[in-house]
Amino acid sequence: MTSILATDPRSGETTDTGLFESPSAEVDQICQAAKASNLPTSGRVHRAELLRAVATALETHREALVALADTETGLGAARLSNEMTRTVFQFRAFAEMLDTGGYAEPIIEPAAQTEMGPSPDLRRILVPLGPVAVFGASNFPFAFSVPGGDTAAALAAGCPVVAKAHPSHPLTSQRCADLMAEVLERAGNHKVFQIVHGQQAGGDLVMHPEVKAVAFTGSFTAGMHLFRLAAGRPEPIPFFGELGSLNPVIITPGAALARADEIADGLFLSFTGSSGQLCTKPGLVLVPAGHAGERLRLRLAEATRLVDAGPLLNGGIYSAFAAGSERLKNHPGVRVLASSQVHEGRGLYPSALLVQVAVEDLSDELTEECFGPTTILADYKNEDDAVSCIERLAGSLTGTIHAEDSELPFARRLISSLERRVGRVVWNGYPTGVAVTASMTHGGPFPASTNSMHSSVGLTSVRRFMRPVSYQNVPAFLLPEDLTGRT
Amino acid sequence: MTSILATDPRSGETTDTGLFESPSAEVDQICQAAKASNLPTSGRVHRAELLRAVATALETHREALVALADTETGLGAARLSNEMTRTVFQFRAFAEMLDTGGYAEPIIEPAAQTEMGPSPDLRRILVPLGPVAVFGASNFPFAFSVPGGDTAAALAAGCPVVAKAHPSHPLTSQRCADLMAEVLERAGNHKVFQIVHGQQAGGDLVMHPEVKAVAFTGSFTAGMHLFRLAAGRPEPIPFFGELGSLNPVIITPGAALARADEIADGLFLSFTGSSGQLCTKPGLVLVPAGHAGERLRLRLAEATRLVDAGPLLNGGIYSAFAAGSERLKNHPGVRVLASSQVHEGRGLYPSALLVQVAVEDLSDELTEECFGPTTILADYKNEDDAVSCIERLAGSLTGTIHAEDSELPFARRLISSLERRVGRVVWNGYPTGVAVTASMTHGGPFPASTNSMHSSVGLTSVRRFMRPVSYQNVPAFLLPEDLTGRT
Repeated sequence: MTSILATDPRSGETTDTGLFESPSAEVDQICQAAKASNLPTSGRVHRAELLRAVATALETHREALVALADTETGLGAARLSNEMTRTVFQFRAFAEMLDTGGYAEPIIEPAAQTEMGPSPDLRRILVPLGPVAVFGASNFPFAFSVPGGDTAAALAAGCPVVAKAHPSHPLTSQRCADLMAEVLERAGNHKVFQIVHGQQAGGDLVMHPEVKAVAFTGSFTAGMHLFRLAAGRPEPIPFFGELGSLNPVIITPGAALARADEIADGLFLSFTGSSGQLCTKPGLVLVPAGHAGERLRLRLAEATRLVDAGPLLNGGIYSAFAAGSERLKNHPGVRVLASSQVHEGRGLYPSALLVQVAVEDLSDELTEECFGPTTILADYKNEDDAVSCIERLAGSLTGTIHAEDSELPFARRLISSLERRVGRVVWNGYPTGVAVTASMTHGGPFPASTNSMHSSVGLTSVRRFMRPVSYQNVPAFLLPEDLTGRT
Repeated sequence: MTSILATDPRSGETTDTGLFESPSAEVDQICQAAKASNLPTSGRVHRAELLRAVATALETHREALVALADTETGLGAARLSNEMTRTVFQFRAFAEMLDTGGYAEPIIEPAAQTEMGPSPDLRRILVPLGPVAVFGASNFPFAFSVPGGDTAAALAAGCPVVAKAHPSHPLTSQRCADLMAEVLERAGNHKVFQIVHGQQAGGDLVMHPEVKAVAFTGSFTAGMHLFRLAAGRPEPIPFFGELGSLNPVIITPGAALARADEIADGLFLSFTGSSGQLCTKPGLVLVPAGHAGERLRLRLAEATRLVDAGPLLNGGIYSAFAAGSERLKNHPGVRVLASSQVHEGRGLYPSALLVQVAVEDLSDELTEECFGPTTILADYKNEDDAVSCIERLAGSLTGTIHAEDSELPFARRLISSLERRVGRVVWNGYPTGVAVTASMTHGGPFPASTNSMHSSVGLTSVRRFMRPVSYQNVPAFLLPEDLTGRT
């Protein structure tokens, strides 16, 4: 058995967690148990109770979990406690969603005479897909990991979950899993939530015949590897991967002149918060060339120079960020506006980086996501310049516009370009900070996600784990509860 | 350029259609034109008008189109005229859907104070994915082909369509395409609907970077080939394939005793109608062994022996059916109950086939779809026998139960087994005949479809071609019409 090591990002020290990678035979056993679990036939009222019980358990252990996650991720107690609040909120939000049957989209059409002749009594509802594999993310040990939104949505849908722990926080993942499994067992739901560790186990999960969908948040490379596995199975299954995003921001001349300081401060927090390790981090900011953008650039450079960036999550992200920073600095046409001093100590601390380039010098290399505290200010000369730059970009989770009300025609062009390539358009704000609501879309055209038709955050994310079934002339006493038409 | 030949199924004669396979350069041009089309920005009111205009044009040319399709498919004027009625109805149903904005699922959440702090004004709506490739089916030259449900749904969603004509009815496909293109051009929508011919062109379509989704109805082999292409693209795209289905039927002892004649007659029409070339044809019927099922088996055998089956659609289906029939007949444990005389003439006429086997002798080979006028009567001894047989089956579009109200516990077990592996449960009816309504699910677990989360028939099928976009704090004058909250 292969031991699992964990690295403390603040010290750079690696220790043995006492956990082991899950061998293939164990993954098989786990998936078979998931298939046999009674969750799919537990009614929505019971599932709502389960989710609320999980929320309560997490809250009860908040302090210990946050402390543990902090040693594994170095994200800081404040940020992690906020994340825990959000995680608990997610479980309760899905529970509330289950209080009524609307999430399963019942459609009831009684028998009738139609233009096409007599039509039968037909009733449709969404049912769970089956066991779901959830791949936790490095950067959100709670909200996008073991007890994260994917897990909450899958359980809400009635799908047993097998989580793949992220190696950045194995102990946090295991502790959360133990807590959840305990709560669910106590409620009579055996093997409804289980966990595996290790890269091989991840591949085994995706390939397991009893796994019927995969939710993944992580890197493009790992995500695409798993996506191709899922699509290549004898029985292909849906793979919902959130892979990385550039999240372009466009500052109009009017906005740059009217609100340079405010925008610079907002962008600074947005691209350096959590050491730039957010999937909605703004990685490219289109700024008016010359005088109009000058104050904004200067203030952003000043703040970047002085930032004391926290450690990166793991050695892989640290090396990739170092390589990415070098690539940015050495790219033709790129000018370094600011780089920060590296925090003292032997941990995985990065130097934040702000660079400037003309939009015409933007290459595919520059517009790849660089995960960590860096962003590119791209100078544009006129509206056409800005719009054609956007038109060349790949899909993103978000696109942000800072503009004044007087710049309506330009704003219209920007929105119409952005909405064709992002999942969320932000107006006079910042892309980081993802509200957990019914109206949220956290997803977008490839490569932001492998399936742009769904959101991985918010109530509609439950749809990823359900499929419709129609009942034709089935008598009421044999119909699912929410299709009988009784209220 | 490669000429396209067409075969008259009634005479077996092959003639040159005067049409040519579409070379790769032409496919590229067509996809680029689709991308540049103005459909995505045409409002839903305009799109509703387009769909109604197409419906009117098809209706105006009904007689000529039906006659042409009959020579190419041999399905008969009555059946084809019904199909045309349905096709016209589909366009009008989607038009009606567009009369209000609900199909795009707008969710409006104004800014508020929440448990998670202040949340922004957030509004979500579905937008079109982009150009869609529609692969027409052999067995429905209208309703599942060039002017079929996939095309109507994609156009309704705001997606330009490139149809791949099925070689079973190239002239019908081309004629429908010309009619539609003319109507759409007249309404000011250039290159919103286009057509290609030939297998190579089909592959080119699926691989084209500007194509953003594929809808396919056809064989497992062709469908899986295209599915793997779509998933293997640098930018993977969703592939909605309806591939084939066994459509199991279970007759309980009570039903077999009470309604043997009625059920036998219904099943007979269901498995021999359109010469068994329907995706919902019942391919396996579980019948009580011994006395209880005897009358049903005898009556079904008698009807099968006497049927004058119409020709099959093309040489490929003819050969596959002949081979499949031989496989059935020679399978260990299989007993031939009846086979029909082949219709006189040199065309592609099959011999209808009814066989009997014990459920314990059912192999994977037997439970593969055999497209054409044949079905298997599988004897079961008791409830466990029947349920465990269903549990071994792969996904199907439909599952049908004939039972009496007095057999509630058995019926419950059957429904709960079926709903986990089909898209539609039919009670005391027949799976053929697919209502075009909001509550229809025409889809199901693999291999019935490559994506069980969607229906390819009915109003919800529009979802296959849309993705959500959220607008955060975007002022009303820049929002899509259906998100402003004005009515």
